[in-house]
Amino acid sequence: MAVSEFQRSLRTLQKKNRMLALKEISNIARLDVGREIRKGLPEIILAEGKEPGDVAKIARSMVEQTGRAIISRANRAHLKAVRSRIRDGYRLEFMPRSRMVLVKSGSYKTKPNGGRVGLLTAGTSDIPVAEEAEVVAREMGCDTRAYYDVGVAGLHRLFEPLKQLLRWDADVILVVAGREGALPTVVAGMVDVPVVGVPTSRSYGFGEKGLAALAAMLQSCSLGMSVVNIDGGVGAGAVAAMIAKRVGQFRRRP
Amino acid sequence: MAVSEFQRSLRTLQKKNRMLALKEISNIARLDVGREIRKGLPEIILAEGKEPGDVAKIARSMVEQTGRAIISRANRAHLKAVRSRIRDGYRLEFMPRSRMVLVKSGSYKTKPNGGRVGLLTAGTSDIPVAEEAEVVAREMGCDTRAYYDVGVAGLHRLFEPLKQLLRWDADVILVVAGREGALPTVVAGMVDVPVVGVPTSRSYGFGEKGLAALAAMLQSCSLGMSVVNIDGGVGAGAVAAMIAKRVGQFRRRP
Amino acid sequence: MAVSEFQRSLRTLQKKNRMLALKEISNIARLDVGREIRKGLPEIILAEGKEPGDVAKIARSMVEQTGRAIISRANRAHLKAVRSRIRDGYRLEFMPRSRMVLVKSGSYKTKPNGGRVGLLTAGTSDIPVAEEAEVVAREMGCDTRAYYDVGVAGLHRLFEPLKQLLRWDADVILVVAGREGALPTVVAGMVDVPVVGVPTSRSYGFGEKGLAALAAMLQSCSLGMSVVNIDGGVGAGAVAAMIAKRVGQFRRRP
Amino acid sequence: MAVSEFQRSLRTLQKKNRMLALKEISNIARLDVGREIRKGLPEIILAEGKEPGDVAKIARSMVEQTGRAIISRANRAHLKAVRSRIRDGYRLEFMPRSRMVLVKSGSYKTKPNGGRVGLLTAGTSDIPVAEEAEVVAREMGCDTRAYYDVGVAGLHRLFEPLKQLLRWDADVILVVAGREGALPTVVAGMVDVPVVGVPTSRSYGFGEKGLAALAAMLQSCSLGMSVVNIDGGVGAGAVAAMIAKRVGQFRRRP
Amino acid sequence: MAVSEFQRSLRTLQKKNRMLALKEISNIARLDVGREIRKGLPEIILAEGKEPGDVAKIARSMVEQTGRAIISRANRAHLKAVRSRIRDGYRLEFMPRSRMVLVKSGSYKTKPNGGRVGLLTAGTSDIPVAEEAEVVAREMGCDTRAYYDVGVAGLHRLFEPLKQLLRWDADVILVVAGREGALPTVVAGMVDVPVVGVPTSRSYGFGEKGLAALAAMLQSCSLGMSVVNIDGGVGAGAVAAMIAKRVGQFRRRP
Amino acid sequence: MAVSEFQRSLRTLQKKNRMLALKEISNIARLDVGREIRKGLPEIILAEGKEPGDVAKIARSMVEQTGRAIISRANRAHLKAVRSRIRDGYRLEFMPRSRMVLVKSGSYKTKPNGGRVGLLTAGTSDIPVAEEAEVVAREMGCDTRAYYDVGVAGLHRLFEPLKQLLRWDADVILVVAGREGALPTVVAGMVDVPVVGVPTSRSYGFGEKGLAALAAMLQSCSLGMSVVNIDGGVGAGAVAAMIAKRVGQFRRRP
Amino acid sequence: MAVSEFQRSLRTLQKKNRMLALKEISNIARLDVGREIRKGLPEIILAEGKEPGDVAKIARSMVEQTGRAIISRANRAHLKAVRSRIRDGYRLEFMPRSRMVLVKSGSYKTKPNGGRVGLLTAGTSDIPVAEEAEVVAREMGCDTRAYYDVGVAGLHRLFEPLKQLLRWDADVILVVAGREGALPTVVAGMVDVPVVGVPTSRSYGFGEKGLAALAAMLQSCSLGMSVVNIDGGVGAGAVAAMIAKRVGQFRRRP
Amino acid sequence: MAVSEFQRSLRTLQKKNRMLALKEISNIARLDVGREIRKGLPEIILAEGKEPGDVAKIARSMVEQTGRAIISRANRAHLKAVRSRIRDGYRLEFMPRSRMVLVKSGSYKTKPNGGRVGLLTAGTSDIPVAEEAEVVAREMGCDTRAYYDVGVAGLHRLFEPLKQLLRWDADVILVVAGREGALPTVVAGMVDVPVVGVPTSRSYGFGEKGLAALAAMLQSCSLGMSVVNIDGGVGAGAVAAMIAKRVGQFRRRP
Repeated sequence: MAVSEFQRSLRTLQKKNRMLALKEISNIARLDVGREIRKGLPEIILAEGKEPGDVAKIARSMVEQTGRAIISRANRAHLKAVRSRIRDGYRLEFMPRSRMVLVKSGSYKTKPNGGRVGLLTAGTSDIPVAEEAEVVAREMGCDTRAYYDVGVAGLHRLFEPLKQLLRWDADVILVVAGREGALPTVVAGMVDVPVVGVPTSRSYGFGEKGLAALAAMLQSCSLGMSVVNIDGGVGAGAVAAMIAKRVGQFRRRP
Repeated sequence: MAVSEFQRSLRTLQKKNRMLALKEISNIARLDVGREIRKGLPEIILAEGKEPGDVAKIARSMVEQTGRAIISRANRAHLKAVRSRIRDGYRLEFMPRSRMVLVKSGSYKTKPNGGRVGLLTAGTSDIPVAEEAEVVAREMGCDTRAYYDVGVAGLHRLFEPLKQLLRWDADVILVVAGREGALPTVVAGMVDVPVVGVPTSRSYGFGEKGLAALAAMLQSCSLGMSVVNIDGGVGAGAVAAMIAKRVGQFRRRP
Repeated sequence: MAVSEFQRSLRTLQKKNRMLALKEISNIARLDVGREIRKGLPEIILAEGKEPGDVAKIARSMVEQTGRAIISRANRAHLKAVRSRIRDGYRLEFMPRSRMVLVKSGSYKTKPNGGRVGLLTAGTSDIPVAEEAEVVAREMGCDTRAYYDVGVAGLHRLFEPLKQLLRWDADVILVVAGREGALPTVVAGMVDVPVVGVPTSRSYGFGEKGLAALAAMLQSCSLGMSVVNIDGGVGAGAVAAMIAKRVGQFRRRP
Repeated sequence: MAVSEFQRSLRTLQKKNRMLALKEISNIARLDVGREIRKGLPEIILAEGKEPGDVAKIARSMVEQTGRAIISRANRAHLKAVRSRIRDGYRLEFMPRSRMVLVKSGSYKTKPNGGRVGLLTAGTSDIPVAEEAEVVAREMGCDTRAYYDVGVAGLHRLFEPLKQLLRWDADVILVVAGREGALPTVVAGMVDVPVVGVPTSRSYGFGEKGLAALAAMLQSCSLGMSVVNIDGGVGAGAVAAMIAKRVGQFRRRP
Repeated sequence: MAVSEFQRSLRTLQKKNRMLALKEISNIARLDVGREIRKGLPEIILAEGKEPGDVAKIARSMVEQTGRAIISRANRAHLKAVRSRIRDGYRLEFMPRSRMVLVKSGSYKTKPNGGRVGLLTAGTSDIPVAEEAEVVAREMGCDTRAYYDVGVAGLHRLFEPLKQLLRWDADVILVVAGREGALPTVVAGMVDVPVVGVPTSRSYGFGEKGLAALAAMLQSCSLGMSVVNIDGGVGAGAVAAMIAKRVGQFRRRP
Repeated sequence: MAVSEFQRSLRTLQKKNRMLALKEISNIARLDVGREIRKGLPEIILAEGKEPGDVAKIARSMVEQTGRAIISRANRAHLKAVRSRIRDGYRLEFMPRSRMVLVKSGSYKTKPNGGRVGLLTAGTSDIPVAEEAEVVAREMGCDTRAYYDVGVAGLHRLFEPLKQLLRWDADVILVVAGREGALPTVVAGMVDVPVVGVPTSRSYGFGEKGLAALAAMLQSCSLGMSVVNIDGGVGAGAVAAMIAKRVGQFRRRP
Repeated sequence: MAVSEFQRSLRTLQKKNRMLALKEISNIARLDVGREIRKGLPEIILAEGKEPGDVAKIARSMVEQTGRAIISRANRAHLKAVRSRIRDGYRLEFMPRSRMVLVKSGSYKTKPNGGRVGLLTAGTSDIPVAEEAEVVAREMGCDTRAYYDVGVAGLHRLFEPLKQLLRWDADVILVVAGREGALPTVVAGMVDVPVVGVPTSRSYGFGEKGLAALAAMLQSCSLGMSVVNIDGGVGAGAVAAMIAKRVGQFRRRP
Repeated sequence: MAVSEFQRSLRTLQKKNRMLALKEISNIARLDVGREIRKGLPEIILAEGKEPGDVAKIARSMVEQTGRAIISRANRAHLKAVRSRIRDGYRLEFMPRSRMVLVKSGSYKTKPNGGRVGLLTAGTSDIPVAEEAEVVAREMGCDTRAYYDVGVAGLHRLFEPLKQLLRWDADVILVVAGREGALPTVVAGMVDVPVVGVPTSRSYGFGEKGLAALAAMLQSCSLGMSVVNIDGGVGAGAVAAMIAKRVGQFRRRP
């Protein structure tokens, strides 16, 4: 491949990707504002590890460019900083369990993409991670349904929720579990849609911090299942929405 | 939920799942022969760690029940044992790079499901794992396309193959990489279909046995990507095919 | 507690323990021949890591002292060395899957203790470890029943074997599983007898060598379950037999 | 096994298990209120990682359904929330060392099951974990006896307590130890009842957080011993009570 | 080599090293005040883990001996203690992101060494580590240029900054990245100057605390790159400056 | 940055990088034959994990394109396959300690770049890794000098070799060490040129496989030092040569 | 060995050990008050992880039994609790760096044992661990000498202190070091007395919490050296004093 | 400290150390032939990882310089190479369990140093490591006594050997143990001489390769004990001999 060919390929790729727009913010961030057009998924601002002021600056710029900012893992200081910089007419939503923040301009509306994402959690303490995933999937345009605390120590808790998800015709099922992480394996053995296992850090002793659940999901003897990182609610929601969006795109064809 | 309700839910679930047939083989295995009907994916026989004679017995029983047996990680002894038990009219195929074995009855035909699975490998040594995944996806009824040795140390090697996959309209892209496992992150940052990262054990020193690649893929700052276990070609092929099959189901609707 | 009191306690303990007899063998081993009387469980000779000649010497001395020798993890060289040293009238039994060797004097008979040990394996490759446990439990005097390949990827395979074990009124159930190690959790959620999880090294990638299964069993959200080390068939059989023996002791009371 | 047979097996299993009743609480938890009837062990509410309000709601519902709630790892906020929701006539008990909370209706009485659980700790700092186990075993109906600080650095401290437990005819001995975790090995070498090793996180440097103790107990060269997870007082109490209950069931037969 | 020869070698080595001067401070520290002359790099005082009073004492002594003190990882208490001990005419500079403190005598001037160090960070949260490195390199006499948030999830963010650094003719490029740590690999595949990868602890789940990034950088399939420890801003700045200084030494020759 | 600007940046970058030529080989490899022009370092073929036939094919193609092939970690089968495919007039060199293979066309000559790379090993068993690094540095055009077995258990062994390297005016010193990996720290504390630590897998017990040495080098309290992966001779040679080449470029200016 | 022989051996052992006296304290601790007579080293009360009230109770009982209590890792709450329970005439000493507490009855005097323990630390932050060791060694009756901040980044800092220790004729040298832990290796290569390496948790990134230093010391290629756990000041002081005491015993013979 | 002072200190140190003689061998090794005079312990040649020819060359040179060569971990190829290079009049001794080789000139005699080293192993498989240590201690001039297979699963096996060692007045006791590594803890709780724990790799599952034993020994709650690396027989023998030699030096004084 010669240099000129290389340029041609890039040009093609760029058309396919449509937009590579960037927005530089005070030399601390380069917002990839074209990502939503290019990939169908918005840039999500991880508040954890960033200065509250920086998060607020980035979020405001994001709303101005795209009509919406999605912030994850926000603590009180982040929330306060963001709130204080909101322009009139912007709406702010805060979800305390998952610590997600949504900021939207007055006219912003999420465009449905026709995909359906189901969610299950093994325990009550897995809810924050599941909520994080659900918000991301919903903001990307998917329909979602979630059932909590259906874990494997009493398998009969699982059947009713699973039946509901299959009847609803979910395109993908996120299964959120800590401890021994067995639930995704059991679910993937029963359904004929892809399953994404989401290990949570809810655990103790050997294999703590979610390592047991992650290992169990990677080792799973059920096929048809992939995995995201521990407590990776944002990543789980995004990949599930990517899968469902692809299905939705064809489902909605006349 | 009372006991009678529990029975009713199970009955519903069973209908959805259609078939739970089992086949017991000489008290060493209980073949889940209904799995293909239930989940749309066949039971795959992992030869590694099993006696050659047992593998041959299980494989033969599988072909008799379902028309086909898929065997992974077969060594010479496994291959020989299987070959010696083949009935007249059966076809056997062996792929030496990935050590997969296919045995099919004379009349067996894979039914296309309309899904499209793309594959990329970072290096030459990642080919065996990619081939394993490709065989599984193809046997489940997907179309596949694969490009090898397109890794990140010279990014310009990536553009042409990626352009081809996007033009072909792949439903999901498997990205197979060892060492630092950066390729899936780079690809997922560029495309608008789900990416499945497949770490391989090709690596050395700190993070050897594929742990660096696995960790890098789980940590990826690109959204829209999930992961399977190290060298998990079978699992990767199965989950990619599950995703593509779901899309194919709608794509092919009149 | 004064010194004289200390001596008194020890004397009492010794009576309870009945026998502390030792047998020194060529300055390489000190056989605890009294262990069976003291603990109700025989010393088991681990062949792995010992010279074939040493194993044979120790085994012969064991049969001479107690009427029986149990050898685990014997390879061909160990087996050959033991065989060549057997006295006339001794019986030798070799189990190739688990590589256990039993040597018994002509008159030796295992005394039943009334306990019942059930065994389940998740896969076909877990059989060697289960067999190791079963032999130990049987040699300690328990009745045993084992069902193989009932793993969680198709839960319906589990119900029939489990029903059989509960009807038979097992005192304890050993559940042997590799990979994600979910089976003991599922079983312990369903039965009202103690469960002992036995992780096996059958696994790959992250959590390989049985670490995922071990972690999952230790993290299990099902109560009523304890764990032994990876591939610890001998340890599993011994602790299960200790539990069952204790029950058997009371069950058989007139 | 055909579908109808599968249904029959499940029905049998359900009878054996008697009750699968569930209680859904505000879409955050599905209480397995039938677990006590099914398994002979109550659901225990892990407060750690749950919102105080959620814990209180779940606990109150539990008492209403079963007459008792057992809460583990409660901090001051959990305790306060639970206390504020207690109905008149309910009794609340708080154990500060182990942070266990018991809530019982006025008429509730634990039914003795005839089993005997002995407990030993290696050090003073292991007492909280031992107390957690003891409370669980007692609430399941077992008699218990505990001796603290009998560790191996001065073996003579062990003999008197051990003599007492053997005289009392314990059915199982829980041995709680941190640091090098040698005590269960020493005890299991001396007694003829099953031993359950309980590693605690009391440790430092290499093998910290209880990993050294866990590893040592899993590697133990004493037979007749199994293990639970680090600081797993609840799990240890439950499995010991399951073992003792099984013995007690026969011991009490006329 | 005889003893006398050994002495001669040492004498030569000392001449090369010029100065081995030490300054003992209240029996808590032995300042290597000759290091700057010997190695061309100053001793840097790590405040973390030291008493505020000790840090202040050491810093003051350092300024008195060499005209400057560089303190890293200073918290408020350290800063306050240092400030309170500053002599009239000393200048103190505090950088809050990286928590570096510089104290200089009135007449102190950094001598330029002609080297050029470029810096890139993958994300906004990597800035503190990059700043630490930049301060060290600048205090050693190098020119520096830094660009932030150019990470691989949107590769097009990288091209402009990289072009600038190459035009400016950087002698070495520090690439600071957390999460999956792919950026140094991508950069090293494109440039013809040495790259130093600096992993940061910005990460979560498996491979957290920067281990994934470190492993990925060590495994990198791009050649021409070495690595420092996680969050090792000081080490990164020092080694980059050593490289650039060596180049600068020749670049500035007439 | 708009799309057209993005294209412009890329074009600039390409000029800087000069050549992006690729050579595809039988769909198993995409040779980055432009790498040497672009980065000043050749593609090095890692034989380990590749089929002998594939290695030979890639090597031959490499020589045809660039006049030279460098192969690392070749076993006897690789060597034989390469040898059998050599064209008349090609020269093959094999270094048995490091298992490096060089194949060159008759007219090929390495162009000196003016850089100087010094090497030290702590022990005799570290020689293979050092040799690997030395070959790479030499093939990139550097002068090299190496001294072996100068480790820290007898520090006086170090002084003479170190004096020689400093007199020779090395631009960078590679220090290769296994076990406790202390040598690079000691050397970096004494010299005023950059040091690259190269941990080797020569070690045992805790920290085996070179992890202790790697950790020690990353933790080093000597400044002016960076690290490559365990046994990473190729990477070490390449990065050292990149540093030395940069210096050499200016050293040789008139 | 028959039972009666076993009793005889124990009796002999007891005489050798002289005293096995125990003191039980409120069922939370069994003080091994005979340890000092038996082993020549006192029981040391680890405050960390114990309730302040319990520590005070144990300490008071210890002073009453033996004339002295040594408490390690005491925080303010422990110190306050101990102080409030001190009897008139008792002396309390608190060392803030190492957080050791000594409580002695009025007449208590440490008996010198003739042994000499030398101490070196690599850095200023290693002082607390060294002080802990020094206090223990001194309380056991040894003479001690300590030199701080003599680490390997500037080897010339080491020579003077080492010369002093050798002149003083130390029986054993404790070398306390964090980070890369190279100092004990360098020292052990130079002296002809036993060296005990004491790794500290002063470190960061890969090998943090002292694991790099521990690994480096265990891997050390210098002979004549053993190791204690990370931050194990008490253990280091005790073993060094045991060695020195043994020498002192003979040194002081007329 | 000025430069001239530095030289003076070194000169003093050298006198203390007496000899720093080196012997360079074909540029592969620098023998520290002065080590025995300087440290009282000979250089020991680790054969593992070295070419047989190199080992033979080094060994021969060693005998020529010092009258003796000690080689550890020799395989058959090493042994053969050494044997073939032996000069007339040299004696070669090979110990097959520990794979140690001794080569001595005709007149060579080990000089007794008056120290006494006791050894205990927990199991039969620990004998090779113990033998390695014993040979080293004996070659350094100590008297030794060893007892095998006295492990903690039956504590009564320990008493007789321990009594013998105490009667013999051992200066230090090496305790060699794999698996759970409890024996050194039990021994150190009973004796008043220093104990050195030697973990062996005899182990399986979690904590395999000796990591459980190492961790247990480092965590030991018995004081008066230090540790060497896993399977570190040579290191154990050397440090024990250093301790015993120091005692012996004073014991033998008139």
